[in-house]
Amino acid sequence: MRAVVMHAPGDVRVVERDDPTIIEPTDAIIRLSATCICGSDLWPYRGVEAVNDTPMGHEYVGIVEEIGDDVKNIKVGDFVVGSFVISDNTCEICRAGYQSHCVHREFVSQTIGTQSQRARIPYADGTLVPTPGQPDLELIPSLLAASDVLGTGWFAAVAAEAGPGKTVAVVGDGAVGLMGILAAKQLGAERIIAMSRHPNRQTLAREFGATDIVEERGHAGVARIKALTDGLGAHSVIEAVGTQESLMQAMRATRPGGHIGYVGVFHDFAIPGDELFFSGVHLHGGPAPVRRFLPELIELIWTRKIDPGKVFDLELPLDEAAEGYRAMAERRAIKVLLQPDGAALGDRPAALAATGANL
Amino acid sequence: MRAVVMHAPGDVRVVERDDPTIIEPTDAIIRLSATCICGSDLWPYRGVEAVNDTPMGHEYVGIVEEIGDDVKNIKVGDFVVGSFVISDNTCEICRAGYQSHCVHREFVSQTIGTQSQRARIPYADGTLVPTPGQPDLELIPSLLAASDVLGTGWFAAVAAEAGPGKTVAVVGDGAVGLMGILAAKQLGAERIIAMSRHPNRQTLAREFGATDIVEERGHAGVARIKALTDGLGAHSVIEAVGTQESLMQAMRATRPGGHIGYVGVFHDFAIPGDELFFSGVHLHGGPAPVRRFLPELIELIWTRKIDPGKVFDLELPLDEAAEGYRAMAERRAIKVLLQPDGAALGDRPAALAATGANL
Repeated sequence: MRAVVMHAPGDVRVVERDDPTIIEPTDAIIRLSATCICGSDLWPYRGVEAVNDTPMGHEYVGIVEEIGDDVKNIKVGDFVVGSFVISDNTCEICRAGYQSHCVHREFVSQTIGTQSQRARIPYADGTLVPTPGQPDLELIPSLLAASDVLGTGWFAAVAAEAGPGKTVAVVGDGAVGLMGILAAKQLGAERIIAMSRHPNRQTLAREFGATDIVEERGHAGVARIKALTDGLGAHSVIEAVGTQESLMQAMRATRPGGHIGYVGVFHDFAIPGDELFFSGVHLHGGPAPVRRFLPELIELIWTRKIDPGKVFDLELPLDEAAEGYRAMAERRAIKVLLQPDGAALGDRPAALAATGANL
Repeated sequence: MRAVVMHAPGDVRVVERDDPTIIEPTDAIIRLSATCICGSDLWPYRGVEAVNDTPMGHEYVGIVEEIGDDVKNIKVGDFVVGSFVISDNTCEICRAGYQSHCVHREFVSQTIGTQSQRARIPYADGTLVPTPGQPDLELIPSLLAASDVLGTGWFAAVAAEAGPGKTVAVVGDGAVGLMGILAAKQLGAERIIAMSRHPNRQTLAREFGATDIVEERGHAGVARIKALTDGLGAHSVIEAVGTQESLMQAMRATRPGGHIGYVGVFHDFAIPGDELFFSGVHLHGGPAPVRRFLPELIELIWTRKIDPGKVFDLELPLDEAAEGYRAMAERRAIKVLLQPDGAALGDRPAALAATGANL
C-alpha cells in the first residue's frame, strides 16, 4: 500500500509499505476513506521531535475490512471513526472518560501511521465507533475531523468549562483553536473571543461562532481580553498552540477561578510556579480523550448540526502529502485532507472559497 | 498595643505599636482573642521572602470593638472570624467564590499583621463572619484555625475534588496538610493516604481521618501510592508544601483525569510543561478563598462536628512569639497559638499530650 513516512525533518515521502494484517484478536484492519495532516505533525517536520522514516498520521475514518476473533462491536463493512489514541474503553481510566490515558493506550502516530491506504487498529472495540450507516461523501471531512481536531477542540472547551453565561477566549487560530470555537458555541458559551490575525481564519472563526476577534498578542492581547471582560479576564480560555508564550497569554487572560483547557502539545518549556499559584486559575488538558466524545460528535455531524469539515481548506491525493505538509508549515493551509485513493471527496473546497482560504 | 514584627529573617520581635483606628467607613477594629503562626510565616523567617520590621500574622479571631459608618453586618461586641485575605464579598470574583482574588483584596499579612492585640480589618462586612454567639473558650482554637489553616486545607480538598468513592493522597504533614485530611474526611472521601514520617503527625493524621500512612517520599512515595491504587494513582491529591519536589510528587501520584489541589505557596520553581501536559491531571489552587467556606466551617465547629483546633500543639503568650517561630521552624511544634493578652485559653494542650506532640 501507499503510505507517508517522514524520512527526516522536512522530508516527507510517500512510499510502498506492506499491507497491515491482524496481529492481535482485538485488532481490526480498516481501509481509509480519508486521512489528514495534523498541526502536531509539524513538530517533527520542524525538527522539534525526532523522526527516522517514521510512519505518519493519526487521524482516520474508513471502512472495516477485517476483524480479529475477539472484536464484537465492529463488523466488516462498517464505516468507522477512531480516536488518535488506542484505548480498550473498559479500564478504570477509560470508564472515567480519560481514554487517551488508557492502561493499554498506544498513540496511533508513533507506531501505526494513518496517512496511508490501510491501517491496523488495536483494541478496535474500544477505539472505533461505527457511524449509523455509510455516510454521504460530504460528511466524510467532518467525520474525519472528529478523529482528532474536533475531538481535541471539544475537549479543550469542556476542560475550560465553556458553557452558558461564559466568556470564552481562544488562543490559537489553527484548526484546533477553530474547533474549540465551534465546541464552545455548541456548549452554549455566551461570548467567544478568537485571538487571530489572519483574515481567512477570522472569517472561519466567526462562522464557527466567534463573537469577537482580538488581533493583538502577548501583553496587548491580554489587555484587550481584560478590556472586553470588565477588567477581570475570560471565564474560560482554550490554549491551542502549545508554546510558553501562548500558555502565559492564556493564564493571564483568565480570571481568578476561571478555567484553562490546554491541548497544544507543550514542548520544552516550564510554567512559572509563583505566577500559576497566584493566578487562581484551573488548568486541565493534555492529549484529548476523543473517544469519550465520539458518539456525541458523530451524532451532531450525522444530523448536520455542526460542520467541522469546513476546517479542511486543502485536499490532496495521498501521493502529494509533501505539498500538504509544506502548505501547512507555511500557513498557506489551515488543515489538509489527504485522499488515500487519490480521488477527490467532492466539491467541498469550493464552498470554502468565500472564506478567503488559500486553496 | 503589643505586636509582632519581623525585624529581619530569623529575628522576630514583639514591639509596641499604635492601636489601630478606623480609616475607611468599611473598616472594623477587633480585639484579638487568639492569633497564631502560619507555615507561610516561615518563608520570610528563612529569608525566602524579604522583611524589614514587617508586621506579622494573618490569622485571627476576636471581638469587634469599633466599626466604621458603612459597616452593616457586624456589630460592636460580635465575636468574629476573618479570612487571611480582605474581600468585599460583593464583586463578581467574590460572588463566584474566589474572595481571595477579590478586586479589592488585600493580604492581611502584608500590611495589617494580626500577631497583635488589636487589628483594623478593611471591608469588614465582606471579610468577617460573626459566630452565632460568644464561643466557649474551648472552641476558640478551632475558630482560629478556620481563619486560614482549616479554610486552606478545606479549599485544597475541594480543589482536589475529594469526595465519596475517592482515594485522596495528602503531600505534606504540616498543619495545612492535616486540615486537608480533616476536610477530605468531612467531604466523604473513601480512603485518605497521609504522606508523613513524623510519628506525632501520623497520630494526628489518623485522628483527623487518614486511613493509610506513607512514609516514603519522592519516587518511592509515588510508587507506594500507586501500589495502593491498582497502579493508577490517587483520584485526588492535596499539595500542602509548595516546593517543586512536593508538587512533582503530587503530579506523579495523581491518576490521569485526577485532581490536584495545591495550597503550599510556590516559591521560585517551574513546572515542566511536557510532564504536566502528558499527566492528564487537573491543577487548581493558590491562596484559598477561605471566606467562601467560613459560614460552613463555623457551623461545623460550633456544633462540635469537627475539632480542627487540635492542630495547635503549642500555646504561648504573644510576648513569646520568637520562641513560637523557633519551635515551628525546628519542627518541634506543628502550629503555635499566640495569646494576645498573655492568658492561656484553657487546658486544650493537655488533650494533645496523647498524640506525642512536642509540647
